[in-house]
Amino acid sequence: MQFNQYLNETCSKQNSLVCVGLDVDLEKIPGFLKKKKDAQVNFSKAIIDATAEYAAAFKINTAFFEAYGEDGWRAMREIVNYIPDNIVKIADAKRGDIGNTSKMYAKAFFEELSFDAITVNPYLGHDAVKPFLSKKDKGIFVLCHTSNAGAEDFQKFTGNNQKLFELVAKKVDSWNEKNNCGLVVGATFPKEMKHVRGLVPKLPFLVPGLGAQGGDFDLAVKYATDNRRSGAIFNFSRNIIYASSGADFAGKAADQAKKMRDEINNRINI
Amino acid sequence: MQFNQYLNETCSKQNSLVCVGLDVDLEKIPGFLKKKKDAQVNFSKAIIDATAEYAAAFKINTAFFEAYGEDGWRAMREIVNYIPDNIVKIADAKRGDIGNTSKMYAKAFFEELSFDAITVNPYLGHDAVKPFLSKKDKGIFVLCHTSNAGAEDFQKFTGNNQKLFELVAKKVDSWNEKNNCGLVVGATFPKEMKHVRGLVPKLPFLVPGLGAQGGDFDLAVKYATDNRRSGAIFNFSRNIIYASSGADFAGKAADQAKKMRDEINNRINI
Repeated sequence: MQFNQYLNETCSKQNSLVCVGLDVDLEKIPGFLKKKKDAQVNFSKAIIDATAEYAAAFKINTAFFEAYGEDGWRAMREIVNYIPDNIVKIADAKRGDIGNTSKMYAKAFFEELSFDAITVNPYLGHDAVKPFLSKKDKGIFVLCHTSNAGAEDFQKFTGNNQKLFELVAKKVDSWNEKNNCGLVVGATFPKEMKHVRGLVPKLPFLVPGLGAQGGDFDLAVKYATDNRRSGAIFNFSRNIIYASSGADFAGKAADQAKKMRDEINNRINI
Repeated sequence: MQFNQYLNETCSKQNSLVCVGLDVDLEKIPGFLKKKKDAQVNFSKAIIDATAEYAAAFKINTAFFEAYGEDGWRAMREIVNYIPDNIVKIADAKRGDIGNTSKMYAKAFFEELSFDAITVNPYLGHDAVKPFLSKKDKGIFVLCHTSNAGAEDFQKFTGNNQKLFELVAKKVDSWNEKNNCGLVVGATFPKEMKHVRGLVPKLPFLVPGLGAQGGDFDLAVKYATDNRRSGAIFNFSRNIIYASSGADFAGKAADQAKKMRDEINNRINI
């Protein structure tokens, strides 16, 4: 099945547009867990068990595992294998390099690890992105307009009556021959999100910025989904996975994931 | 010592501007090695032993190790630890993400692994780059104008009488407070390299594209170094490390590294 179709069907079946972000920082997980071996794995498994019911996707932030070397990489493998088969598995790795190198990154995340999709950086252009697109059932989310303050530095650079992030959106749309391309568009810049949605009506968005970063729910849901129960997934990391630092962390994470799901679904007027 | 100063002193002491790129593909290393355990490590150690005399830096392409999961990560660790202390150790990882994530990438490559420098992607802007700059003795090379065909897609996007890669060069120059920033500028676009060198006279360049990618030696050495015996290092991967597929691979790699060193040094007219 084409990745974008799989993503939409998963959102429908789960009745959720929530992506739970596993940015598992050993400094932030409950104290009673962090003293034990395999703390990243045990914490993540408990979060997955508690929140899978309310999620369309899990997104693993690779940096938080690379920071612990090969032990972290092994933890990442255990965690991605633990995510239920009916939920989309995204590697938030922001990779991208010349062709023969991107091919190795695609091998790392799509073959050696069993992710369904990966986030990709567009700066090196089409030949850096193409190796991630060879299989229709494996998808990419290309950085378009990110949620951080630094997005202003280069992504809004303007020429020929368009901004860089607009050019990126249109180029990615032209690369979407296998219906497996999407964009990362941050909720913290709603005006820009509205504009991108107008440019590329069919590409799914992966939307960071609604949780700890403070993006506006009304605008983000309106612009990203176009009032459809598909077309976007909204990532929440810190405000779900660290909802409590006590023994009840998993239960509180589930409450928060359900709440985020409902906050979004209640804003879709269909 | 500031990273850029360390880089220049290493180039002087080694009398070399060669960076040996360890893009260690198990499909391409000599047959008699690839059947054995730890093939990536054994191959890399032999290449390092043979070429260190002629090199200012070794650059490990992380994709080629991530493709083998935690075994690959362990191999990367063994290899970086094996590089002699007097040679610069670069992680060609092309990372970059929002602040709290870039901080974890910096931890992964500068603390957990013992690299001196990392390649960084600028698309997310200053807050994505800043966490890599907190220690003066750890450096970055930010992608400016890359060596691949896709460099045309976004890096040459033009506005306000400048191109994106020019804006990147100037921004990185403004971030160079600790003298630990450099740029990746490909040898396959000499006109653009000349222009960048004019914009930022002080930033060191990491130059890919002279080996298998076919860049012009005369122009690249002229523009990247400004006729100094510092200011740039030139990367060679495939044409050194796969110079022979036989039992003589290390000797042939040494011959090729020496040849590349001399090809560069002979073009510096001082």
